[in-house]
Amino acid sequence: MRATLSALDTSETLFKPLVVLELARDVKEETRKWLEKKINEKKKNGGAQLLVRPLIEKCEEQTLESQNLYLIGASTIRLLLGAESVGLVKECNDNTMRVFTYETRHNFKGFSDDNDDFLTMAECQFIVKHELENLRARDEKMIPGYPQAKLYPGKSILRRLLTYGLMTQVFPLHDNEALKKLESLWYNRFKLKYQPLDGIRTYFGETIALYFGFLEYFTFALIPMALIGLPYYVFDWEDYDKYVIFASFNLIWSTVILEVWKRGCALMTYRWGTLLMKRQFEEPRPGFHGALGINPVTGREEPLYSSFRRQLRIYLVSLPFVCLCLYFSLYVMMIYFDLETWAQDVHRESTFPELTNILLFVPSIIYAIVIEIMNRLYRFAAEFLTSWENHRLESAYQNHLVLKVLVFNFLNCFASLFYIAFVMRDMKLLRQSLATLLITSQILNQIVETLLPYWLQRKYGLRVKKKVQALKADVDVTLYEQIVLEKEKATYLGTFDDYLELFLQFGYVSLFSCVYPLAAAFAVLNNLLEINSDALKMCKVFKRPFAEPSASIGVWQLAFETMSVISVVTNCALIGMSPQLNAVFPDSKTDLILIVVAVEHALLALKFVLAFVIPDKPQEIQVKLAKLEFESVEALKQQHIKLVAESLKEEGKEDEKNTT
Amino acid sequence: MRATLSALDTSETLFKPLVVLELARDVKEETRKWLEKKINEKKKNGGAQLLVRPLIEKCEEQTLESQNLYLIGASTIRLLLGAESVGLVKECNDNTMRVFTYETRHNFKGFSDDNDDFLTMAECQFIVKHELENLRARDEKMIPGYPQAKLYPGKSILRRLLTYGLMTQVFPLHDNEALKKLESLWYNRFKLKYQPLDGIRTYFGETIALYFGFLEYFTFALIPMALIGLPYYVFDWEDYDKYVIFASFNLIWSTVILEVWKRGCALMTYRWGTLLMKRQFEEPRPGFHGALGINPVTGREEPLYSSFRRQLRIYLVSLPFVCLCLYFSLYVMMIYFDLETWAQDVHRESTFPELTNILLFVPSIIYAIVIEIMNRLYRFAAEFLTSWENHRLESAYQNHLVLKVLVFNFLNCFASLFYIAFVMRDMKLLRQSLATLLITSQILNQIVETLLPYWLQRKYGLRVKKKVQALKADVDVTLYEQIVLEKEKATYLGTFDDYLELFLQFGYVSLFSCVYPLAAAFAVLNNLLEINSDALKMCKVFKRPFAEPSASIGVWQLAFETMSVISVVTNCALIGMSPQLNAVFPDSKTDLILIVVAVEHALLALKFVLAFVIPDKPQEIQVKLAKLEFESVEALKQQHIKLVAESLKEEGKEDEKNTT
Repeated sequence: MRATLSALDTSETLFKPLVVLELARDVKEETRKWLEKKINEKKKNGGAQLLVRPLIEKCEEQTLESQNLYLIGASTIRLLLGAESVGLVKECNDNTMRVFTYETRHNFKGFSDDNDDFLTMAECQFIVKHELENLRARDEKMIPGYPQAKLYPGKSILRRLLTYGLMTQVFPLHDNEALKKLESLWYNRFKLKYQPLDGIRTYFGETIALYFGFLEYFTFALIPMALIGLPYYVFDWEDYDKYVIFASFNLIWSTVILEVWKRGCALMTYRWGTLLMKRQFEEPRPGFHGALGINPVTGREEPLYSSFRRQLRIYLVSLPFVCLCLYFSLYVMMIYFDLETWAQDVHRESTFPELTNILLFVPSIIYAIVIEIMNRLYRFAAEFLTSWENHRLESAYQNHLVLKVLVFNFLNCFASLFYIAFVMRDMKLLRQSLATLLITSQILNQIVETLLPYWLQRKYGLRVKKKVQALKADVDVTLYEQIVLEKEKATYLGTFDDYLELFLQFGYVSLFSCVYPLAAAFAVLNNLLEINSDALKMCKVFKRPFAEPSASIGVWQLAFETMSVISVVTNCALIGMSPQLNAVFPDSKTDLILIVVAVEHALLALKFVLAFVIPDKPQEIQVKLAKLEFESVEALKQQHIKLVAESLKEEGKEDEKNTT
Repeated sequence: MRATLSALDTSETLFKPLVVLELARDVKEETRKWLEKKINEKKKNGGAQLLVRPLIEKCEEQTLESQNLYLIGASTIRLLLGAESVGLVKECNDNTMRVFTYETRHNFKGFSDDNDDFLTMAECQFIVKHELENLRARDEKMIPGYPQAKLYPGKSILRRLLTYGLMTQVFPLHDNEALKKLESLWYNRFKLKYQPLDGIRTYFGETIALYFGFLEYFTFALIPMALIGLPYYVFDWEDYDKYVIFASFNLIWSTVILEVWKRGCALMTYRWGTLLMKRQFEEPRPGFHGALGINPVTGREEPLYSSFRRQLRIYLVSLPFVCLCLYFSLYVMMIYFDLETWAQDVHRESTFPELTNILLFVPSIIYAIVIEIMNRLYRFAAEFLTSWENHRLESAYQNHLVLKVLVFNFLNCFASLFYIAFVMRDMKLLRQSLATLLITSQILNQIVETLLPYWLQRKYGLRVKKKVQALKADVDVTLYEQIVLEKEKATYLGTFDDYLELFLQFGYVSLFSCVYPLAAAFAVLNNLLEINSDALKMCKVFKRPFAEPSASIGVWQLAFETMSVISVVTNCALIGMSPQLNAVFPDSKTDLILIVVAVEHALLALKFVLAFVIPDKPQEIQVKLAKLEFESVEALKQQHIKLVAESLKEEGKEDEKNTT
């Protein structure tokens, strides 16, 4: 063990730290040694074959808090082999995208044996994370030193250490130089420009780059809606035919932009290689627990949890709880309406109408804040419940969480608007509520999500800097400072909240677009700001997240499409209720309703036809994918022809035997 | 060449004819020799390496018409290799389904080296067809003897021969013994029993077995609807609440049965191996033509046809033509209504109401017959147009054809019913029209599709038998008779028409189910008959079709689902219009409509949620598929670990060099 470490020390210049492991403070020496050995050990002996180094050697000053930090790196060749094992897709010299293999490495663009830049740092970190997570127990029955922390063959050691609290975190290191470059291209400028999506992808990985890509695309896509909506506000157009045109445009437009996004997304992820990447076999998620049994798929021993018991938990606990929350949300809504009535009464009887005019907005603003608080509280409850449902796979967990959160947030945010629109039928109040809700939630989000954490982060950063400068130990001070600073940063929990925010915004813009055409304009303004504040958040506030390959925005595509279907229904209903349209059919209300319903059905049918007709992938990408498939089929065929020739030779001999 | 043939003659007992080729009568000797050689030639020399034998040797009597018939067979080992090349999936000894490879052949259930029964005859014929179709030109610039019939490297020889008219047909032979066995299990019995689906699949292949499986499933699924519908007819229930219950049951039921079918289908096709079979790379369809160019996918020289010109043909010719046909269909419908009025006038003024009562049904019956005729005529036009659109792939051709035919048939069959229901609002006439249309079309179909061809076939069969018996040549008379008989039979053109019939039936049953609850009962009766007549048709009337592997009923699933969405809308509208329901809301028609629309939306939403929640594949199949995927991932991983070990050994050496 020591020998390996000193070998590392001699070639210290070659060691580039990629990932930091933080152990708990009181972990036994025995356990540390075992873990270091495991990480260092050869692959065929069950290790990860990575390089590991404590941030500060034992012998040095004991007062430092950082003796539990380990740096993980890997040799270039190890990373290349890891790239093959995670199934990375890279561009070849002939401009096609192919699955990287170590054997064919010289066919890939930008590869040369003495060049370390072939894999981006984010990719290297992703590979190291993958290898660490796949560090599995062999014969160990427990983590050495902790007999309670049971292991069984095939159990991921890292996950056990994390769930048992022996390891506090694993995070990738920032590359300050590259980060500065990226920042200067991204948000340190005040002119409008496309985001450096490829740069974001190189630094943060595909999932985050796709979010920013979608945010940018969505903002651009909203601009036509905002522009068409502006004159309605400016000239105070109230003719129903103009509203019909506006709403129809919105409905078709929202279908088209969602379809076109799929195509743009395919183009982008093809270029990034993730479109071709095969999904890895999914492991049980970290929190999953159950009695040990034999998994029917893998045939391995692992915890099993009966699907029936999970269903019971879902239908007997989670579902009633969600319903209760929905009821509570509606109850709060009714309180808001009482407040609203009270405010209007005060305003009507007031002697200072200028003063109480402001009071009219107060209930909406309070309600908007309450909604935000309830959303955030519910989010915790939903996470707790979904985790308690004990889903085996991370994807199942995510799907159940997304479903719970979406349903509640949808009702919580839009119930009052639906109530105003279809029960109270007060269009003026609807417009006012919509505006207040939209603007308040946007401002709150910007503050809570970015500005507050950024400010806290800066304060802490200054403190650490002072402390480190006072230290003057003979360690690598820059690296040391960077790691101590980064390890205290909050962890970025994924794009969920960011997409959710966009989803709700899309709801505000599309559900009642014919009542408040200005919503799109506000959304555009907010998103231009959001791009910058989210970028700031990614670069400054949070720990660097591990890059995650992904080929699309996944379940959010479905969520946005569902929202656009609902918006067809609400818009048609709103237009049908408009007094201008009712004036056209003074005698027969039934005819009006029938016409509106017919139009609604036609629009919905048109939506589905459009979604069906527009291909999900551009022609160009289709051809490229077909070409790859064709090549692999051809290769198999060639192999087969050879086999036929050989086998039939044997047969010929046998035939001769038979005839003689 | 001669040598090979005589070699075949010596081992004649081993030659089992599988497929028959019929050349045109005046094909030159040179061409025949070349073709025989090509089929016989070794694979690596560009041949198909199959066995070929003329049905009757040249030297024999010249008056026989059958000298252009060739029998194709193959050795067992050749067939096994072919099975690998088409990607056949078979059951292993450990009860899992796996892709067959020649090397691992001993792992498969029922395989032994001296056993020829491992592959079914249908599979052998499919393999031979695949090999024949993949017989490609190498250096030949034309078909020998026919300089006009150009060839280019990679062009399928068989397709060129067929398009140039040098070959008239290729068809697989019946296996009379197996056929008799199948018939006795299938339709030669008068008690109700499940169909022998596995037997049908073994003999006719998966596509046809799936059709019969769907037909049977659909019939069983209709029985509850038929049973619930019966009392409505018997007791003449007219209460709206009963109708509402009936219609709601139908709507949910039709969603559920379509979803459950997907699961049953997955179970079946997993057992048959087609669920796991990879789609083969699709070749251009036979009729496709264009200027020679380089295909961007394959990089090969082949005919290209610009997608723009195809779009022009579709939108400027096909689309207007379809619209014209739709207009014509509506025009005919209006004539029918004139006739209907006339008949009613006559009936009203008649002195013999008993006599003219029958006259009332005459217009409907005439219209039903006209509809059937128009459907069939339009079918020809649609086939011609779609073929003229010059689609490159058979699948694209099929999709465009299905779309054209479905739209027209839907309007042609149901337009009059929609008109009666929603414009004339005459429920009595609707019920009468529906009954007449449904019953007439079912009777017509049975006659035109099966009985007539069967009768013609039998007459011809007796004539051939007489002729052959009079012949008394010294050829294998049974085989000769069989082939001469079979080659004159009509070719089965695929399951399209059969599915279309079911689709229209589903329309009659579901679209207006709340008006005519008896429809389901008629459909059940018809389908019980249809199972038998279709079976008769497959076994007796048509040539044996080539087996086609398929994993689902494909586009028809979508068509049936669309129909069930439309039926939600129509049923809700019909219930909303019912006088009983209108009596409940005497004052406010608007409220009624709003409630109906709300219920309709809720039902549609429920449909989509149901379709989303019910998994497409049963748990059991999901686990099996996951297991296969897991195994292949594991195999790759093992390979990778070995590679890592080797490569890192090299690296170790390099490191030593670096440090020294």
